[in-house]
Amino acid sequence: MAARNALYVQSGGVTAVINASACGLIEAARRHPDRIGRVLAGRDGLTGVLAEDLIDTSLESAAHIAALRHTPGGAFGSCRRDLPPLDDSSGEYERFFAVLAAHDIGYFFCNGGNGSMDTALKVARKAAELGYPLQVIGVPKTVDNDIMHTDCCPGFGSAAKYVATSMREAGLDIASMARSSTRVFVFEVMGRNCGWLTAAAGLAAEAAGQPPHLLLLPEIPFVPARFLAAVGHAVRQYGYCAIAAAEGLVGTDGRPLAEAAPRDAAGHVQLGGVGEQVARLAHERLGLKHHSAKADYLQRAARHLASATDLAQAYAVGEEAIAFALAGESGVMVAIERLADAPYEWRTRPVPLAEVANFERRLPAGFVTPDGFHITDIARRYLFPLIAGEAAPPYREGLPEYVRLDNHPAPRRLAPGVAT
Amino acid sequence: MAARNALYVQSGGVTAVINASACGLIEAARRHPDRIGRVLAGRDGLTGVLAEDLIDTSLESAAHIAALRHTPGGAFGSCRRDLPPLDDSSGEYERFFAVLAAHDIGYFFCNGGNGSMDTALKVARKAAELGYPLQVIGVPKTVDNDIMHTDCCPGFGSAAKYVATSMREAGLDIASMARSSTRVFVFEVMGRNCGWLTAAAGLAAEAAGQPPHLLLLPEIPFVPARFLAAVGHAVRQYGYCAIAAAEGLVGTDGRPLAEAAPRDAAGHVQLGGVGEQVARLAHERLGLKHHSAKADYLQRAARHLASATDLAQAYAVGEEAIAFALAGESGVMVAIERLADAPYEWRTRPVPLAEVANFERRLPAGFVTPDGFHITDIARRYLFPLIAGEAAPPYREGLPEYVRLDNHPAPRRLAPGVAT
Repeated sequence: MAARNALYVQSGGVTAVINASACGLIEAARRHPDRIGRVLAGRDGLTGVLAEDLIDTSLESAAHIAALRHTPGGAFGSCRRDLPPLDDSSGEYERFFAVLAAHDIGYFFCNGGNGSMDTALKVARKAAELGYPLQVIGVPKTVDNDIMHTDCCPGFGSAAKYVATSMREAGLDIASMARSSTRVFVFEVMGRNCGWLTAAAGLAAEAAGQPPHLLLLPEIPFVPARFLAAVGHAVRQYGYCAIAAAEGLVGTDGRPLAEAAPRDAAGHVQLGGVGEQVARLAHERLGLKHHSAKADYLQRAARHLASATDLAQAYAVGEEAIAFALAGESGVMVAIERLADAPYEWRTRPVPLAEVANFERRLPAGFVTPDGFHITDIARRYLFPLIAGEAAPPYREGLPEYVRLDNHPAPRRLAPGVAT
Repeated sequence: MAARNALYVQSGGVTAVINASACGLIEAARRHPDRIGRVLAGRDGLTGVLAEDLIDTSLESAAHIAALRHTPGGAFGSCRRDLPPLDDSSGEYERFFAVLAAHDIGYFFCNGGNGSMDTALKVARKAAELGYPLQVIGVPKTVDNDIMHTDCCPGFGSAAKYVATSMREAGLDIASMARSSTRVFVFEVMGRNCGWLTAAAGLAAEAAGQPPHLLLLPEIPFVPARFLAAVGHAVRQYGYCAIAAAEGLVGTDGRPLAEAAPRDAAGHVQLGGVGEQVARLAHERLGLKHHSAKADYLQRAARHLASATDLAQAYAVGEEAIAFALAGESGVMVAIERLADAPYEWRTRPVPLAEVANFERRLPAGFVTPDGFHITDIARRYLFPLIAGEAAPPYREGLPEYVRLDNHPAPRRLAPGVAT
């Protein structure tokens, strides 16, 4: 069997360890030159594939590829682009497979979340329909941790470690000065629909009464009166109230609070997001000095604080994608299976893309305390292993030393087709 | 000479390493039981002193005191309270010195910034006026780095390292997706009047064109047209524009932008601060997708990313405060003197409190490029040594393990006096 080339795309929001998956995948592919020729990467993901703007990773040094293991962001670029329905007649699939054929692609690796697994599934189905010989493997990635049938999603553990560490540190700061200064602090974390990262912030508390005192999960509708009562209770009890709030927090009408925010004269939604919004509510209604922080991209890029477990899993799902492909698998995602909580044991296994594509795994009810404001010991048992271990990047002149790839283009073989 | 007790207060905003100064001071004091009896600490700083709410640190184990070296926040509590003018007749000074006399305090150590050095100076002058035998030593601390006559301020180097690292990491994230997603990202950092932390964010760029592309310093009035032109230029040149903005950014009228923000129906200043405000300006005027992050307390509490240099200096100024006191100094602050840039060499020296109290050191003009949007090599030469070296805290279960002191109260000896 002659070696065929592989195509790798990064898809959706990037993470602190998505490049570790790329590293695992490329390093594994390089160990099998008899089966896999070059690994090409779509520049900016699927966008680059459709534009035949491909990166030839075989021209990148082994040192550069190895450095991907400790470099955050998406080294080949990513995008949120999806493929149209299978019966689409816009020519996008024709273009996609023309690019694959022109570059003798026999393996397609899609590194992303729920939506990206749907893209991978469509590619697999279309290839079958067209009779194009292609093995399609999904490589999971998302700080949202919301992919089904996998213990967790690479990227989440590191973001979770960042969020919990930041919460613990900010909590100590606020405790120091609460008697005369800030009494309500809200840390806004990512999570449009799923409270996994907000739940992770709950790990910061080592005992009852330690920050965070409240979690505002997107799964639990926000009721101002209940929130204010809980804040008042914490302030009376502990002197201050530290809160982690999901960006996607919704009201009882199911609408995101961020959308319901007051608008300025020009009709624009007010600044600052949910964190500042609920902090100010406490300020206005309870007269408490407030502050808020919004980590935004910092939380999904914080490679300096990566979880060693997450990093190992990110690398493994990349490496195993190659192993699965060489074993003849296709139409599957590399999932992580938990074998034991403590000490944490896990292994990879294939799950059909059809079982994960476009589904969403929300926080289980058993992870949340009856009042809806904190996590249970069941949640802690699940979460702690995922943030375990440190994996510092190399430092130079006091700052993490991250690689910037050369990203040499693969020569084009087609006339320009479907544009970006 | 009989041993007398020492009083230590943490004052003003806390940092990732102020407890390292406490550690240096207490460990040094414990080595001189012949001269220094117990080190008492004001609970919540000066507030605790006036309320005779003192902590007896001699009851804290050596292990707990040692753990202060890696614990952020203010372990004894802090406040922003100042003392009244020396001719004040409210009885506050009488109360203050009654507390000192009741606990046989012969040494007063004030660990804070510009304003706190003024407090220390007042105490020293009042003691002289009253004939109360007291040695007063200032121990510098502030993430703002704005104390005069010291090379830098403990706390700044760690916050600077955090800010620069976060900027570099977020920059890689944004670069990954700029082609189809966020093109303008603003990272809001602390600094009401002084751009030291904003300048530190500039260290993230290893070469021209790397993020951050723009720094918005509080020393340079914000001119929307110039800002928008610079954003447009960066987006055309690099595909995106990453920005660090000081919270204290002012307009050409000298008013903070945060104050000039649109108000909601209730007349409250709009949410989100300067970072979101300028990001949205770029969005509205240039049609670019925008995001913003606000690290808030995270940046001054991020002990997990402390600078080893900063940590060493924070410990040293605490330790040297004892040495200076034992050498008979009083009315001085422990300053840091730079002897060489690379490799960085420094030593401590006493500077009169009168020369630092209430002064403010702003960013020198030579640190800023002529267009006002970035830092010069002179600034880099100054800043890099301050963020050098890593000093990770111990971790347990994936999170930094920080100490919570027992903070045993010293028995009261006075009737209740001036209240908090």
